[in-house]
Amino acid sequence: MSDNKEFVKEITNIEDDFAKWYTDIVKKADLADYTDTKGCVAIKPYGYAIWENIQNYADDLFKKSGVENVYFPLLIPESLLQKEKDHVEGFAPEVAWVTQGGGEDLEEKLCIRPTSETMFSNLYSKWLKSWRDLPMVYNQWCSVLRWEKETRPFLRSREFLWQEGHTIHATAQEAEERTLQMLEIYARVIEDLLAIPVVKGQKTPSEKFAGADATYTVETMMHDGRALQSGTSHYFGQNFTKPFDVKFQNKEGKEEYAYQTSWGISTRLIGGVIMAHGDNRGLKLPPRVAPIQAVIIPIATHKEGVIEKAQEIYKKLLEDYRVKLDLRDGYSTGYKFNDWEMRGVPVRIEMGPRDIENGVCVLVRRDTLEKKEVKLEDLPHELGLLLEDIQSNMFKECKKRLKERTTTATNLEEFCKNMEKEQGFIKAMWCGDEACEDKIRELTGAKSRCIPFEQEHISDTCVCCGKKADKMVIWGRQY
Amino acid sequence: MSDNKEFVKEITNIEDDFAKWYTDIVKKADLADYTDTKGCVAIKPYGYAIWENIQNYADDLFKKSGVENVYFPLLIPESLLQKEKDHVEGFAPEVAWVTQGGGEDLEEKLCIRPTSETMFSNLYSKWLKSWRDLPMVYNQWCSVLRWEKETRPFLRSREFLWQEGHTIHATAQEAEERTLQMLEIYARVIEDLLAIPVVKGQKTPSEKFAGADATYTVETMMHDGRALQSGTSHYFGQNFTKPFDVKFQNKEGKEEYAYQTSWGISTRLIGGVIMAHGDNRGLKLPPRVAPIQAVIIPIATHKEGVIEKAQEIYKKLLEDYRVKLDLRDGYSTGYKFNDWEMRGVPVRIEMGPRDIENGVCVLVRRDTLEKKEVKLEDLPHELGLLLEDIQSNMFKECKKRLKERTTTATNLEEFCKNMEKEQGFIKAMWCGDEACEDKIRELTGAKSRCIPFEQEHISDTCVCCGKKADKMVIWGRQY
Repeated sequence: MSDNKEFVKEITNIEDDFAKWYTDIVKKADLADYTDTKGCVAIKPYGYAIWENIQNYADDLFKKSGVENVYFPLLIPESLLQKEKDHVEGFAPEVAWVTQGGGEDLEEKLCIRPTSETMFSNLYSKWLKSWRDLPMVYNQWCSVLRWEKETRPFLRSREFLWQEGHTIHATAQEAEERTLQMLEIYARVIEDLLAIPVVKGQKTPSEKFAGADATYTVETMMHDGRALQSGTSHYFGQNFTKPFDVKFQNKEGKEEYAYQTSWGISTRLIGGVIMAHGDNRGLKLPPRVAPIQAVIIPIATHKEGVIEKAQEIYKKLLEDYRVKLDLRDGYSTGYKFNDWEMRGVPVRIEMGPRDIENGVCVLVRRDTLEKKEVKLEDLPHELGLLLEDIQSNMFKECKKRLKERTTTATNLEEFCKNMEKEQGFIKAMWCGDEACEDKIRELTGAKSRCIPFEQEHISDTCVCCGKKADKMVIWGRQY
Repeated sequence: MSDNKEFVKEITNIEDDFAKWYTDIVKKADLADYTDTKGCVAIKPYGYAIWENIQNYADDLFKKSGVENVYFPLLIPESLLQKEKDHVEGFAPEVAWVTQGGGEDLEEKLCIRPTSETMFSNLYSKWLKSWRDLPMVYNQWCSVLRWEKETRPFLRSREFLWQEGHTIHATAQEAEERTLQMLEIYARVIEDLLAIPVVKGQKTPSEKFAGADATYTVETMMHDGRALQSGTSHYFGQNFTKPFDVKFQNKEGKEEYAYQTSWGISTRLIGGVIMAHGDNRGLKLPPRVAPIQAVIIPIATHKEGVIEKAQEIYKKLLEDYRVKLDLRDGYSTGYKFNDWEMRGVPVRIEMGPRDIENGVCVLVRRDTLEKKEVKLEDLPHELGLLLEDIQSNMFKECKKRLKERTTTATNLEEFCKNMEKEQGFIKAMWCGDEACEDKIRELTGAKSRCIPFEQEHISDTCVCCGKKADKMVIWGRQY
């Protein structure tokens, strides 16, 4: 199997250079490619199919929770963007401006949406009249643009795909509940579909979204111990509804400003799947999100009946699974094995003439590489069990890593030592002072990930300044 | 029922002012609204749900035919747009340009995609190596932007949603077959889902897409007899693959340029549904595309057991249908009847205390307004039959109009008379000279819709110049 070695050689070793390994996987597994539009990638069929599976799963949960989809304009007039002070300060430096249209210079320039709080607030102000109209729980699946200096496919791209939900409510309590409800839904998408455990919590004030009262986050840990902010949900109070005049007549007949939220997940999650699960053989996809859940590779296809049997089984499995039958000419069996392993297909189904004679096939799981002989008549059922087992095993593996590489620290020295050793998350108390966050970042490169909902008492004092502290923060380096 | 009259009064009479009727429906039925971004609308939940149903139906047919979805950048560098001469001439005047990003003027300006032939061709040129890589049959669901002067919601908007498929093939024949295959799929979407009959044919050279060898179209007729170009499919030959250097090594080991197609349908189809089916009561939605297929309106909800029974039936019907239960307080039954009629819900289910006692309810169909009493135990089954009947009846009604308002003409006088009288389609022979198309447009406002696949022999000579003619063209005024 000389092409086996040849093949694996093309991918950088994951322990040698994780960043280069990542880019290799993105390109070799045909997920995405660079384009002549600087900082923007083309998402190829295999990558986009992962996104479609994420979309379908999330959209279904959204709709069950009462979310309605809409589509609002891509272009936002400059005057709209400027209505909320913190927001414009946060986003104006990184927007792209349209200044010409239809052969003429525009009177007012238009930015390509970096996010749509301003557009939604403006439209809500036109539509909202009475408490009867509330809540409005709208969401759009679209692309946004932020003029990033350094970009990496899926993780940080000038243009990226996401969903942005924007809701308005009659009371602060209802809006806060919606903010947390969406965070829970994100946790389900990431844990149940993508098999990546999350840490749920609240961002510290310095890390919250431009214009928000509170930002909640689901944080995940990648292969190298770094954090990926995987989804955020914001509570705005009336920060936007006041400048945008989003008000309604309440049940008592009085005018009141609405309370607002927004929340989003993006194609960044594809980067998360790659970095949380991948290994030196390539991509490793959780069965529930894998575009191809099992690939059938018949062996010795020139022998009578092999192709026919493989096609028969393929058709049978297609009823319940996303299956591929690899009948490519001119590629060796070894090449095919490696190719599909590299693309992260959860299960390989091998069947040669002797297997078929004996009425069996061999299942090889991508996560552990274990092989199992299965009777052809039991295959549909056995494949289902195996896929479920792979899904839960992959989640367990990630959970184990999260646990092992999360340490505690009670002083700076310990913090630095742990960060150097584990390169993971650190639980430590924080006094609430931004200066301590700055100092920790300068010393270790780690930022506060969040104030987790599940608090523990690590010590009585701030890990940085030693002053009294009652909040436990999770810290880590990030993507 | 005083609010009945009040309500209907708000919508312009369809025969008095069709354009105003259309805008009234778009706004009153909550499909879309104007925004502060000039020429761009916000698609509201009810309008977007129609689009989602169109997307799901079409995407399923696409995938079964081998289409793979992708997402390519929104922004196209000026140099890319300019590579194909006819194409840039056609589109450059109506694009929007990004000239600033991240606080700086860009070295090369970027246009927002008006369509993505150039982006796809450029990427295909990077990826295509061998005949083994072909065909590439990619599609993206996205928004595009064209700087239109006059806009109307759904029909002509600066930004609109669509899908654009772009494919490359090893042979001209295969590409031509794909072009026609997609046209057939569009015909199925429009006829089977939207209940609007189509005329399939080829555009005349003056009406084809900028850069195409051939453009095929599905044309539909609206309530007022005007045409809506509802979907197009283009065959490019090697017009783009040559300037973009999209070539491959064929089976004989020689380099060859690929053959290309593109095809699209858009949110324009929502405008088509409104204008093909609507009436003076408002929108009329075909059941298969209706976001709400049936609305349950319980009567005398203060009476014991009415709400409970309605909820029980609602839950039962939800298993198989998209149903809504209207329990809104503070609205009269008459108002609710009119409201849902105006929104085009195919079936209204009325049930009062006496109906419930008798174990029945009343079904009212939106298309004919006929009422039918149905036993509650038979309701799930009966509703299904009724929805199918409405779907096919709506198609039949449109087909009848298309037939009645399509006339023939053998000379210009007859052409003008028929166009004045029927305001519909005219079948007439054409010599192939663009000057005749121009003359007909100047005289009557009608343009050539297409050279239909189903040809008839109307006469031996061109309806305009009287010279020998062997092509029958369908003509009509258009949206």
